[in-house]
Amino acid sequence: MLAFVLEGKTAGLSREHPEPVAPDGFVSVRMRTAGVCNTDLELVRGYMGFGGVLGHEFVGEALEGKFSGRRVVGGINFGCGTCSTCIAGMARHCPERTVLGILGADGVLAEQFVIPERNLLVVPDSVSDAMAAFTEPVAAACEIIDQLPSDFPRGRALVLGDGKLGPLIAQVLAANGFDVALVGRHTDTLRWIRDNGVTLGTTIPADTVYDLVVDATGSSEGLEAAIAATRPRGVLVLKTTVAGAHKVHLAPLVINEIMVIGSRCGRFAPALELLADGRVNVRPLVAAEYALDAVEEGFAYAGTRGVRKVLVRND
Amino acid sequence: MLAFVLEGKTAGLSREHPEPVAPDGFVSVRMRTAGVCNTDLELVRGYMGFGGVLGHEFVGEALEGKFSGRRVVGGINFGCGTCSTCIAGMARHCPERTVLGILGADGVLAEQFVIPERNLLVVPDSVSDAMAAFTEPVAAACEIIDQLPSDFPRGRALVLGDGKLGPLIAQVLAANGFDVALVGRHTDTLRWIRDNGVTLGTTIPADTVYDLVVDATGSSEGLEAAIAATRPRGVLVLKTTVAGAHKVHLAPLVINEIMVIGSRCGRFAPALELLADGRVNVRPLVAAEYALDAVEEGFAYAGTRGVRKVLVRND
Repeated sequence: MLAFVLEGKTAGLSREHPEPVAPDGFVSVRMRTAGVCNTDLELVRGYMGFGGVLGHEFVGEALEGKFSGRRVVGGINFGCGTCSTCIAGMARHCPERTVLGILGADGVLAEQFVIPERNLLVVPDSVSDAMAAFTEPVAAACEIIDQLPSDFPRGRALVLGDGKLGPLIAQVLAANGFDVALVGRHTDTLRWIRDNGVTLGTTIPADTVYDLVVDATGSSEGLEAAIAATRPRGVLVLKTTVAGAHKVHLAPLVINEIMVIGSRCGRFAPALELLADGRVNVRPLVAAEYALDAVEEGFAYAGTRGVRKVLVRND
Repeated sequence: MLAFVLEGKTAGLSREHPEPVAPDGFVSVRMRTAGVCNTDLELVRGYMGFGGVLGHEFVGEALEGKFSGRRVVGGINFGCGTCSTCIAGMARHCPERTVLGILGADGVLAEQFVIPERNLLVVPDSVSDAMAAFTEPVAAACEIIDQLPSDFPRGRALVLGDGKLGPLIAQVLAANGFDVALVGRHTDTLRWIRDNGVTLGTTIPADTVYDLVVDATGSSEGLEAAIAATRPRGVLVLKTTVAGAHKVHLAPLVINEIMVIGSRCGRFAPALELLADGRVNVRPLVAAEYALDAVEEGFAYAGTRGVRKVLVRND
């Protein structure tokens, strides 16, 4: 079958990749549409030392099991299901976990892949394939809400970075009652997002501090600016994983007693709801759709500055 | 009067320092005992760009006002009392604040100083001067408990750094139900702390992760070790202010969804309670007591590696 495979630091299309066989508890899924994420681009640069089929954002068709024939999305962390972390409901943090297309498990940029059946959710008919392919990153945005202290006020929020993830985070925060500003270099193509309650800017307002700041830039430069824009006792969320070390002045975190929350994957159910009811609009974020046998071109295009979501289709 | 004054990067004893005059809302306090804090040592290295009388840990005798003649301790942040931050109960974060001996306000290493009357608390008779001089750093340790999400479990805690602040933090966490390990280079002189429920070590146990980790080392090297010792979705508290930039790998914060909390000053009332009932023992932490006119020697000694608390007395 066709599969987009990372070996060392080279990713390429394999045309004769063996079809995966589903182990116990797993089912085979035919990929319908997959998204390219910045994490995929980082993996090719050596992040996590991953090798195998890339890709973790998908909507597919279950080929077996109780969802056979249905359109499905699915959680990307495969917990062992038996350790204390999994039993505590934190399978996404299972120390023995594998992660779809990221850690020890082949991903979705292929004709077919395997995934634990318990990770799957059925996609409502009102959510198109192109929308459903965003479920994973929208869930990652929803995770911020799950991680905030339960009594944290729904005040002013600033999202830094208008790339692949920032516009999703901004909409999710607005849907959850925050007054949201999104700052980035390419906001000119995001005017539609104002309909979902997000204001746009190209620089951080110098005279404002925010209850909640989300850094979705993935750059070290952004981090100190993000700290400076967070009010005393406010929350700063780190939402992008970047290989390498950041050099940061930490004293302002202590002086202003800022809470920094690292945030990764989230629950899929609230993400599907937000996509279904239109409070998160994703269609204008699609920069291009490529057929699976042109995945190499799609992947290269996804790494171009200013390009938001590239989808790969297996029609 | 005698006063220990920082000018530029030189701190020295002035014998003819003018007596301060209390502005509206302030009262004059005669210093009885003051403590030297790592922040004082940092200030001399240029942190905050402070100039003036050093010192912010004190017990004194109010010379006027409603506490006249009583032994008092007092909060070190002088909020304006009228801005939205102060009205929200966060005077410690008032953007217009001055801070006793740290920012825009002369400190306590002098015969006399002035402080807003509303910042003062009376010291119970059961708390000696030497104990009361620890109220500020014990309050700073108590602040961790105030900042934790309210539903955070009282599980395993690791305190890194057994200098001036670490042993206080360890005891405060133990008093609040945590199972606490304190790791540092000079734990051999801290055996008494085991009576207050703290276990001791000289290295971070390689096979354990902690619900709560507190970095009280003030070093960059400690920080990545602290991150590695925090369990997924655990809390890492930064408890020391250090001038300069840290180089840190931040990806583990995101992958393990760790919450990092910068933590500074705390409420004095719970600190006085813990000192009064013996759940926080401070007497063995006193390395030396100097008379005020020997404050220069005392300050130098406080900066010696492995030396815990140096007290300065104005008898």
